[in-house]
Amino acid sequence: MTLANRAVVLFSGGLDSTTTLAIAAREREVECHALTIDYGQRHRAEIPVAERLARKYGARDHRILHVDLDRIGGSALTDPAIAVPHGGSQGIPITYVPARNTIFLALALGWAETLDAQEIFIGVNAVDFSGYPDCRPEFIQSFAALAACATKAGVEGRPVHIEAPLLNCSKAEIIRKGLDLGVDYADTVSCYAANASGLACGLCDACCIRRNGFLEAGIPDPTRYAA
Amino acid sequence: MTLANRAVVLFSGGLDSTTTLAIAAREREVECHALTIDYGQRHRAEIPVAERLARKYGARDHRILHVDLDRIGGSALTDPAIAVPHGGSQGIPITYVPARNTIFLALALGWAETLDAQEIFIGVNAVDFSGYPDCRPEFIQSFAALAACATKAGVEGRPVHIEAPLLNCSKAEIIRKGLDLGVDYADTVSCYAANASGLACGLCDACCIRRNGFLEAGIPDPTRYAA
Repeated sequence: MTLANRAVVLFSGGLDSTTTLAIAAREREVECHALTIDYGQRHRAEIPVAERLARKYGARDHRILHVDLDRIGGSALTDPAIAVPHGGSQGIPITYVPARNTIFLALALGWAETLDAQEIFIGVNAVDFSGYPDCRPEFIQSFAALAACATKAGVEGRPVHIEAPLLNCSKAEIIRKGLDLGVDYADTVSCYAANASGLACGLCDACCIRRNGFLEAGIPDPTRYAA
Repeated sequence: MTLANRAVVLFSGGLDSTTTLAIAAREREVECHALTIDYGQRHRAEIPVAERLARKYGARDHRILHVDLDRIGGSALTDPAIAVPHGGSQGIPITYVPARNTIFLALALGWAETLDAQEIFIGVNAVDFSGYPDCRPEFIQSFAALAACATKAGVEGRPVHIEAPLLNCSKAEIIRKGLDLGVDYADTVSCYAANASGLACGLCDACCIRRNGFLEAGIPDPTRYAA
C-alpha cells in the first residue's frame, strides 16, 4: 500500500482555492488539511463559507489561523478607510495586501512542518489575475527555494513542495476543471465586498474576473449576487 | 539633506534583537519601526519587556502583531504540553518553532511595504545559536531573494533589503557591540521560560548560550535570574 501524500491547502472558499482543493483531494488523492487565514479582511464572509466547503470538497480537516494584518493596513481589503474599487484597475491595484501570499505561505509552511506534510497547495494564477506580484511564477519558485532551507524538514532532506496547479490557467480553464471535478461554484465566494450573507457585489475586480471566466467558458454564471 | 533610511526592526526585547535595534538606530541612524510578534509563545513575558525597551533603544514606534501559532504547535515554545529542555540540546532542538522566522520576516515585509521602508533588521546569528535552520546565512539570502519579487515595491524596483548585522558574530561579540552602543543587558530577557516578572530560568538553551556569551566576553552577567 502506498502512503498518500499529505498537504496543507490554502483555502478561502473562493473559486480558485476551491478548485485547488478539489484537484488536490479528488484528482491527486492527497490527504488535505485546509488552512484559512482570518487576517482582518473586509470580506470576512468568506470564512464561514470556507468552513462549510472545506470538508465538502475533500479536506480531512480545516483550521483557521488569525493574524491581524488590519493593524498594518495598506490595502482596500484590510483598511476600512480605503474603498474597494470597481473592476478594471490598471497596474497593481489597491486591493493588493502587502506581502499577503508570503505571509499565507509562511503560515502554511509552519503547519505543514508540524503535520509532516510534503506539499502546500495554493490557488494563485497568473493569467486572469489582478496584477498582484505574489501571484506570479517567479514568486512561487522563489518561495519554494526558501521553503527548502527554512525548515527542519528541509534541512533534513524533506523539503515541502509548493504546488500551484492553476498558475498558468485562464479563469475559464479553472472553471471547466472544477466542473469536471464536481465543484458547484454557486457554493463559492470570490467577492472582495461580499456581504454578511456571502452575496457578491458584482462590481469589484474579483467579481469582474470571475464573471468573465464563466462567459469565456460558456457556462451560466451561478454566482449569488446581492443586486 | 539626506533622507534617513526607514526600517522595520524585528524586536523581542532579547539580547540579540535589542543589540540589533541599537545598531540600526544609534549606529546606522535609521528611522526604526519596531515589530514584536505575539505568537502564543510560552515566554510571553518578553512582550511587555519589548514594549518598555523599544523606545529606550531608539525606535520611533512599536507595534505588536498577533498570530496564533499555538494553534499549530509543534514546538516547546508554542505547545504547553512540550517541556522546555535544559541547555545542551544536540541537533535542531524542540524549541525550534516551525517556520517561525519565515513568518516573522513575512509579517515584517508586509509592514515594511505599508511604511515604504527600505530595510528589515533581524537579530539572527549563526555562530552561538541553537541550530535553528532559519538563523543561517542561506535562509537570510533566500528570504531576500523572495522579498525582491514578492511585493509591489520589489516589482517597482524598490526591494526591501534584509539586514542581519549579527549573522556572523559570536554571542561575546554581540555583547561587546551592544555595550559600546549603550545597551544595558539587565533590561533584556532572552529566556524561553521567563516568569511573569521577566526573571530568567538560567537552565534553558537560551539562558546557557547567553550566560556563556558574558563569560567569553569577560563581562559580569547582569541577567536577572529567578533562582
